[in-house]
Amino acid sequence: MSYQEYTIEGRNAVIEGFRAGRPIDKLYILDGCQDGPILTIKREARKQDTLIKYVSKERLDQLSVTGKHQGVIAVAAAYEYASVEDILQSAREKGESPFVILLDNIEDPHNLGAIIRTANLAGAHGVIIPKNRAVGLTAVVARTSAGALNYTPVAKVTNLAKTIEELKKEGLWFVCADMDGTVMYDLDLRGPIGLVIGNEGEGVSRLVKEKCDMTAAIPMRGNIDSLNASVATGVLAYEIVRQQRERKA
Amino acid sequence: MSYQEYTIEGRNAVIEGFRAGRPIDKLYILDGCQDGPILTIKREARKQDTLIKYVSKERLDQLSVTGKHQGVIAVAAAYEYASVEDILQSAREKGESPFVILLDNIEDPHNLGAIIRTANLAGAHGVIIPKNRAVGLTAVVARTSAGALNYTPVAKVTNLAKTIEELKKEGLWFVCADMDGTVMYDLDLRGPIGLVIGNEGEGVSRLVKEKCDMTAAIPMRGNIDSLNASVATGVLAYEIVRQQRERKA
Repeated sequence: MSYQEYTIEGRNAVIEGFRAGRPIDKLYILDGCQDGPILTIKREARKQDTLIKYVSKERLDQLSVTGKHQGVIAVAAAYEYASVEDILQSAREKGESPFVILLDNIEDPHNLGAIIRTANLAGAHGVIIPKNRAVGLTAVVARTSAGALNYTPVAKVTNLAKTIEELKKEGLWFVCADMDGTVMYDLDLRGPIGLVIGNEGEGVSRLVKEKCDMTAAIPMRGNIDSLNASVATGVLAYEIVRQQRERKA
Repeated sequence: MSYQEYTIEGRNAVIEGFRAGRPIDKLYILDGCQDGPILTIKREARKQDTLIKYVSKERLDQLSVTGKHQGVIAVAAAYEYASVEDILQSAREKGESPFVILLDNIEDPHNLGAIIRTANLAGAHGVIIPKNRAVGLTAVVARTSAGALNYTPVAKVTNLAKTIEELKKEGLWFVCADMDGTVMYDLDLRGPIGLVIGNEGEGVSRLVKEKCDMTAAIPMRGNIDSLNASVATGVLAYEIVRQQRERKA
């Protein structure tokens, strides 16, 4: 893996970074800082829906690699995000029905990495994540994806519900993972499909769930609440693989 | 979770720990240390197949909580291991065919925790791990199991191949996960079953694989090598769940 997450430090460097279109995941700004360059940086950050965190000087000093942060540090990903259209295009090129995995605010980078790995092996054409709150393509994600990040496109969108609406026009059906849904074996998961996986703690948000055509439950026979998010994604993705194989057979 | 991994430090405390039957996962001994008490400790450790690591004074100082290790630190689990018989007994009590997950040297505690969590929800009656090399029931395992460690018994055995032999006498069939196996959908995975999952890097060892009745492959449609071990366990465990439900239907 050639991936490295890197920091851009200092006012001019960060403004430059935004203007050059670098994929900036997070912005740390010294709490209370309000001068001209900082306001410019905040404006650029809002344009790109970058997550801003206001932190103490001690935290900035800790995050700083160069020691010269001037009150602002941006965390950028060396990996470029794909577009949703790139993902659809990949399905077309392979002559396959689109199979997309959408993550509603996965927070743990190990989970995101494992899910990208699973997406690759289950034959999904891409992964879609929301811009804010969720984890982005960090170094940990790249490592736990075991190289899959080099092959499986990951798109970052502003509004997951709106993206689902748009993909429905492309013929995709959406199934969302939820304990209260229909047992997955009893659903028809063949054809163009989007699999929606929720946040580790809260599951799929109401607004996103309402956009979905089906709700799939993994049968639970145990004492605890739920599977790990990446394991649940694997189990559901492979139920889709199984049903799509059956259709061909 | 009330679980805490804890260290036992100093010669007498460690000897006491062994004699009281505490589940000691690992023993750190100062490299080159050969006196009477240390030899006694090593003898006790060998009796219980505890993994011994010979380390520098700096490493011991780092591991030490009390600052008084006297050249020896034992790492103990607050969770008690179950026996293989406990696992079979649990299946009998539920009136179900035994379903056991055996892990051939899983090294990542996050994977072990996620697998115990999966085992609980897929309705497996227990997890069997080998005594040496593999990770034990550490604090990280307990945390990532999301409480499943309180319900799903985990047994630690000296020789996995021998345990498989013994369980075959109890009527279990063994299926081992391997990329070169038969596609899992084409196997009959119903009835009393043991699912064998290999090490993250090397897969299932040859000796263990030879004892298995079937080899199951998860279909791979991507560019990279393999799924994360806990995701693979989830996918295979739920194929077993699916087939066992079909039989009942």
